[in-house]
Amino acid sequence: MAILRGMSKYESHLDMCFSALGDPTRRMILERLARGEASVSELAAPHDMALPSFLEHLKKLEAAKLITSNKQGRTRICELSPDAFTPVRDWLTEQNAIWEGRLDRFNDYINNLVQERNK
Amino acid sequence: MAILRGMSKYESHLDMCFSALGDPTRRMILERLARGEASVSELAAPHDMALPSFLEHLKKLEAAKLITSNKQGRTRICELSPDAFTPVRDWLTEQNAIWEGRLDRFNDYINNLVQERNK
Repeated sequence: MAILRGMSKYESHLDMCFSALGDPTRRMILERLARGEASVSELAAPHDMALPSFLEHLKKLEAAKLITSNKQGRTRICELSPDAFTPVRDWLTEQNAIWEGRLDRFNDYINNLVQERNK
Repeated sequence: MAILRGMSKYESHLDMCFSALGDPTRRMILERLARGEASVSELAAPHDMALPSFLEHLKKLEAAKLITSNKQGRTRICELSPDAFTPVRDWLTEQNAIWEGRLDRFNDYINNLVQERNK
């Protein structure tokens, strides 16, 4: 049960990561933050959007642990989480391993066929 | 205009990819297909879900070009697109390059500081 709970937590973190990345405004924010930390108003400037909608985007990125933010005086500063993309990258690596395992098995199968033929 | 249209098309393909990946059922389908092609009923079997809901998931994966499907007789066979994850991987690589560029600049900055001090 603990493992299941742990898994579903991992699942929902991955869900939040991928869903957060599925929006061009949010990806632009991440691209900006990859260049260095920025205040909310700096981040909002290039986007033609009401502030409350923009803050919603930041909230989704923060919930997915892709960014962190903290107040410095009256300004809120955002930065990219250092291992923001690790869960996504890990998932992709896993898929790749499954896919390559499949190609390896296919190769073995062909090699066996060829050996059988040449006997 | 053509470039803008091209870009927004690219954007929306990435949007569809990431959004499609933000769901555990859809990721399970992809994991299954990474092992080899499968019919719709084989894919649906492990999921406790009405068929129309399950087909919606397949439709989203196909719209995002993560999978393809074709009819063989009365059976619809799905398979993983060979470069399903290329757009997602490319975007991550780009982010990494930006991030590392930033670390390089920071390194240069520190090295300069140290050299100035030692003069």
